[in-house]
Amino acid sequence: MSHNSFGHLFRVTTFGESHGPALGCVVDGCPPGIPLEADDIQAELDRRKPGQSRFTTQRREPDQVRILSGVFADDRTEGRQLTTGTPIALLIENTDQRSKDYSEIRDSYRPGHADYAYDAKYGIRDYRGGGRSSARETAARVAAGAIARKVLPAEVIVQAALVQMGPHAIDRARWDWAEVERNPFFCPDAEMAAFYEGYLDGIRKDGSSVGAVIEVVAEGVPPGLGAPIYGKLDADLAAAMMSINAVKGVEIGDGFASAALRGEENADEMRSGNAGAPTFLANHAGGILGGIATGQPIVCRFAVKPTSSILTPRRTVTRDNRDADIVTKGRHDPCVGIRAVPVAEAMMACVLADHYLRHRGQVGAN
Amino acid sequence: MSHNSFGHLFRVTTFGESHGPALGCVVDGCPPGIPLEADDIQAELDRRKPGQSRFTTQRREPDQVRILSGVFADDRTEGRQLTTGTPIALLIENTDQRSKDYSEIRDSYRPGHADYAYDAKYGIRDYRGGGRSSARETAARVAAGAIARKVLPAEVIVQAALVQMGPHAIDRARWDWAEVERNPFFCPDAEMAAFYEGYLDGIRKDGSSVGAVIEVVAEGVPPGLGAPIYGKLDADLAAAMMSINAVKGVEIGDGFASAALRGEENADEMRSGNAGAPTFLANHAGGILGGIATGQPIVCRFAVKPTSSILTPRRTVTRDNRDADIVTKGRHDPCVGIRAVPVAEAMMACVLADHYLRHRGQVGAN
Amino acid sequence: MSHNSFGHLFRVTTFGESHGPALGCVVDGCPPGIPLEADDIQAELDRRKPGQSRFTTQRREPDQVRILSGVFADDRTEGRQLTTGTPIALLIENTDQRSKDYSEIRDSYRPGHADYAYDAKYGIRDYRGGGRSSARETAARVAAGAIARKVLPAEVIVQAALVQMGPHAIDRARWDWAEVERNPFFCPDAEMAAFYEGYLDGIRKDGSSVGAVIEVVAEGVPPGLGAPIYGKLDADLAAAMMSINAVKGVEIGDGFASAALRGEENADEMRSGNAGAPTFLANHAGGILGGIATGQPIVCRFAVKPTSSILTPRRTVTRDNRDADIVTKGRHDPCVGIRAVPVAEAMMACVLADHYLRHRGQVGAN
Amino acid sequence: MSHNSFGHLFRVTTFGESHGPALGCVVDGCPPGIPLEADDIQAELDRRKPGQSRFTTQRREPDQVRILSGVFADDRTEGRQLTTGTPIALLIENTDQRSKDYSEIRDSYRPGHADYAYDAKYGIRDYRGGGRSSARETAARVAAGAIARKVLPAEVIVQAALVQMGPHAIDRARWDWAEVERNPFFCPDAEMAAFYEGYLDGIRKDGSSVGAVIEVVAEGVPPGLGAPIYGKLDADLAAAMMSINAVKGVEIGDGFASAALRGEENADEMRSGNAGAPTFLANHAGGILGGIATGQPIVCRFAVKPTSSILTPRRTVTRDNRDADIVTKGRHDPCVGIRAVPVAEAMMACVLADHYLRHRGQVGAN
Repeated sequence: MSHNSFGHLFRVTTFGESHGPALGCVVDGCPPGIPLEADDIQAELDRRKPGQSRFTTQRREPDQVRILSGVFADDRTEGRQLTTGTPIALLIENTDQRSKDYSEIRDSYRPGHADYAYDAKYGIRDYRGGGRSSARETAARVAAGAIARKVLPAEVIVQAALVQMGPHAIDRARWDWAEVERNPFFCPDAEMAAFYEGYLDGIRKDGSSVGAVIEVVAEGVPPGLGAPIYGKLDADLAAAMMSINAVKGVEIGDGFASAALRGEENADEMRSGNAGAPTFLANHAGGILGGIATGQPIVCRFAVKPTSSILTPRRTVTRDNRDADIVTKGRHDPCVGIRAVPVAEAMMACVLADHYLRHRGQVGAN
Repeated sequence: MSHNSFGHLFRVTTFGESHGPALGCVVDGCPPGIPLEADDIQAELDRRKPGQSRFTTQRREPDQVRILSGVFADDRTEGRQLTTGTPIALLIENTDQRSKDYSEIRDSYRPGHADYAYDAKYGIRDYRGGGRSSARETAARVAAGAIARKVLPAEVIVQAALVQMGPHAIDRARWDWAEVERNPFFCPDAEMAAFYEGYLDGIRKDGSSVGAVIEVVAEGVPPGLGAPIYGKLDADLAAAMMSINAVKGVEIGDGFASAALRGEENADEMRSGNAGAPTFLANHAGGILGGIATGQPIVCRFAVKPTSSILTPRRTVTRDNRDADIVTKGRHDPCVGIRAVPVAEAMMACVLADHYLRHRGQVGAN
Repeated sequence: MSHNSFGHLFRVTTFGESHGPALGCVVDGCPPGIPLEADDIQAELDRRKPGQSRFTTQRREPDQVRILSGVFADDRTEGRQLTTGTPIALLIENTDQRSKDYSEIRDSYRPGHADYAYDAKYGIRDYRGGGRSSARETAARVAAGAIARKVLPAEVIVQAALVQMGPHAIDRARWDWAEVERNPFFCPDAEMAAFYEGYLDGIRKDGSSVGAVIEVVAEGVPPGLGAPIYGKLDADLAAAMMSINAVKGVEIGDGFASAALRGEENADEMRSGNAGAPTFLANHAGGILGGIATGQPIVCRFAVKPTSSILTPRRTVTRDNRDADIVTKGRHDPCVGIRAVPVAEAMMACVLADHYLRHRGQVGAN
Repeated sequence: MSHNSFGHLFRVTTFGESHGPALGCVVDGCPPGIPLEADDIQAELDRRKPGQSRFTTQRREPDQVRILSGVFADDRTEGRQLTTGTPIALLIENTDQRSKDYSEIRDSYRPGHADYAYDAKYGIRDYRGGGRSSARETAARVAAGAIARKVLPAEVIVQAALVQMGPHAIDRARWDWAEVERNPFFCPDAEMAAFYEGYLDGIRKDGSSVGAVIEVVAEGVPPGLGAPIYGKLDADLAAAMMSINAVKGVEIGDGFASAALRGEENADEMRSGNAGAPTFLANHAGGILGGIATGQPIVCRFAVKPTSSILTPRRTVTRDNRDADIVTKGRHDPCVGIRAVPVAEAMMACVLADHYLRHRGQVGAN
């Protein structure tokens, strides 16, 4: 058991605080012989990197990753760097731990943050920039996710998008995956992305913040991945997404909407398909039944609460239990959900890679 | 790693199929010296037992539990049976595996069921009554949950209720915990419970089914339980609830609604409280911040899809990939969400008991 | 983590006390489609069963096993019972829990037993027949081992033998595996087996007991099984054998004797072999290098201390810390090492089955 | 499950190859509030460091450790650096990866090494200096062990010593712990240490190597640590020690010698002691009964085979299965057992720290 590890056969252990010397992870269990360069990982990290638009924190971190172990290249590999099957350690040094006065958050608990909870648990916390509870930890997840993608069969495609900001949901009829990389919100609806620009500027200028809903989809997942009863693919996805900072809800397929359906509406009917696999006529189930992939796209959505670090003063208490007011200055994402998009992809890829190896272990199929 | 176990220090492993000789579980890691009689467990099992009203399956199972190990009584315990710290095995024999013709579900996949997924994974399945994927497995969870409750400090109260059936949500202003045990729906709103009676009769007579939303609340949880980053209390709850049959979504506190909030609305402000702990002015967070309990009530909701076994014919395919129609006869719950209520309590209790021991292990507090 | 489980992908959880209603295990992670009848398991249990000669305890236990879950047979399997990939629960009811007066071992600690240690840990113990610390628990291991053998490729042969009783080691030049099933000591040296008969009769009549050394060998293990650094095959074997009751030492290959060797003596030289694999000229390493199988026979030996339950009075203390003398009456094995032989095979088979699945998970080979 | 992690609640994950950029570990689950400076860890690393005498490898590594996370200091801690309960990452950069020609060990398998086994498993290996299978990995264990010592109660003292080199065992009557730090062999017998000097010089000049036996002792361990049945303290110690490079056997207490004893010799008799705990009259059991500590000193011994890297030519095969001769040049320990002494202490400390937290989790005592 490890509070800072996830996965079983593809197992990721992360470490590091927001303002410590470095953060990173160890990926254990990766199959051998997979081409892996630091650049492969860097490309994913760059998508999550702060400071890329005015809509994310202005902290300037290059998030440069180093591979410390678990890969090897020589003339027999024709110079390509391959995984060796031993643990892959990834290191990202922190460079922009801006020197500032932390006395306020040292002594007062920011509402909506983990400050009080950490003190209640440990009696001590690294309050600088949120310490271990900072979303900066997700850089390590994204790095691990880049490796997970390479473990999966090539036909598995994992993509995520922001589908709601504050109360404003996208129009799914306008969904275009190509749009996701064209706007600073990872939004698949170009029209709504344009609207978000003005909307989020207003929120930011108000010294406020908003929540969001992210949808992550995996296509090409082989039927059979996953496992009953407590190793269910959807249970593992729920834990993976809920473990992302600020996430308050997770759903698969129709999710909460399915509660309002009748049985005949909800059943995903089947017709005989080519290649011996059924064709499903709907995907209310989001690609998972009984905890096991059906071969349909896996669809997972999660809700991100609004950033708790806001300029609007809030009532709180101090460490020694006196009333106080607090304003969280500094460089914060007005909608922390935006940067959760690459994190969502990483977590989905890690869960699938883990189940891919677990399935292969028990059943032997590839 | 074990697909059929959950928890770490309070660890539950379940086994058994719907129509096999027996089902049960092994509870490992239970602290010693806790009074435990079979009757304590039976009381919880009786709440989940099928056939108690016309609104649940008419299968007649006494669900009689035997404790096979891990307890001891002698004159030094004054005849009281105490846990010994060794594994507690619980056994429930199946008695009403009605002999019937299973040829249809043997050869065809029921839409919305795990039938196809199990075959895709294992190439073989026990189709009788759903085999391992049957909700009958949850009896073992409820039994384990009865032990988990005894591991927790006496001030921790875990209760669940059905808060929505089909599209019909309760009126939270009428919430009365005492009502929950007074109607066959575990509904805390007496007025809505009366409405559900007619509503569900109609659904049942239509040969259809409906979904539901369940809310489970834990009060008195000591602040500090839980753990960053991948051992988060909410992540473990999400996995626990999502692992229950037919669950498609889980949320904590305001859940998906929090996506639409602004930062200043969502922050749970604090005032100095007695006993050195803060008083929170709201509970949008559902009692968990940064994965750690704050001492506020822990509030978790999940959506249950409509029962997939319905009398209305649905299109499907056979095992050898030919088109077919299927009607699922037999004894089925028209709203499987109802009996998920005691299961939800059990899963909450198990997750909390596990985190209680994990916290004590790392931090040493009681 | 589970104190009562071992293995990872082939995972065994045992339960039960010597004088409780039943003991058994849950085997999780078994691949699907493997033929498995209760008789397959019974055959192994019968080898370990007490009361088969005057050299083992006279307790009369049929050790009849029931399979409660995880298997299925129908016309499509042509009536053969196959594993389904879901957990296999095995149950053995205790029948000969002879009613007797346990007041002495209730109040006094038997030297060399776990009595005091259990009380120091838990504050309570089931003292009847040793409770959970009884070697009776190993019946569950043997049952699980019977399944493990079926998971392994057919060419893997696991055999064990008693190679030393008290100070009397066998003559390895006379080693004949066929002898093992012909004498009550599982001894591969017929001459020495004849000697043991008189020797152990003497020990038994003296009200004493002796230790033993067991050797377990696995042939046909595919090179590559095992894993660095903390999943080493030899480390897992060491833990598995040391977890057997009364075991005080474990060695692989030359073991402790290798400390006295020089480098050039100890190196297992290689010559090019057929089928592309090297031929080793010696096996000092016992088939494992760097924690990974080399394809040579895996050779593991362990020492079993003399049974602590003896008729010779020993000095001890009572539960309330007063001096006392104790004599352990009852039905005890004068050399508990004898019945450790089938247990050793079971543990070896379980460790190999686990590593077989783990290797397949990471590397994909079969 | 993780091949590169050990422990459960005090959990250590290591990474790194002999000639990669760095090695290190992540320690998860450490209790909060423990003073920890890099110097505390450095002191232990310096004991294991190569190149400190002519009897160990001449590789020059400063083994300088950096703490990357999991600690915090501010004015409230009075400048002392304390653990925070979050993962502690430790990094040791490799500096003396001497550039050399590795073509021989690239293409040929060194007998007694893991070379062939790694290739059989992974199909690829980092052969430079042994890659992941190098004893260099044990630096990370020693670093973790330094933290483990601080987790244990102050009265627990863990010490190890070399008690046999080649066939030459020490005289236990001359045992003096103070001697251990006074000679380059960690030998508690000054006279024998003097002998080893000449002996090992001879071995070294012959281009050979020898094995050794190490004994590690933990005093002050609270009775009750450990757990039946598969979490036995001795089983965990056996795995921990067997996982150290070149170890081929592990024993507890009398170990293999106990096989030759009779029951009345082996029983550790008890007399009533002060403070309510028994006084044991012997310690054949090595401080562990039924897998649980009795409060007596825990005594563990293990055998280390001779270093396989020797200057004497040995017969082997090449990667493409052709016969070859091989001589392993380079900087090697003539008796790798010497530097296993601080590693043994580290592994003992880690196992005890883990069981200390596990016991506290289940039973609640401190």
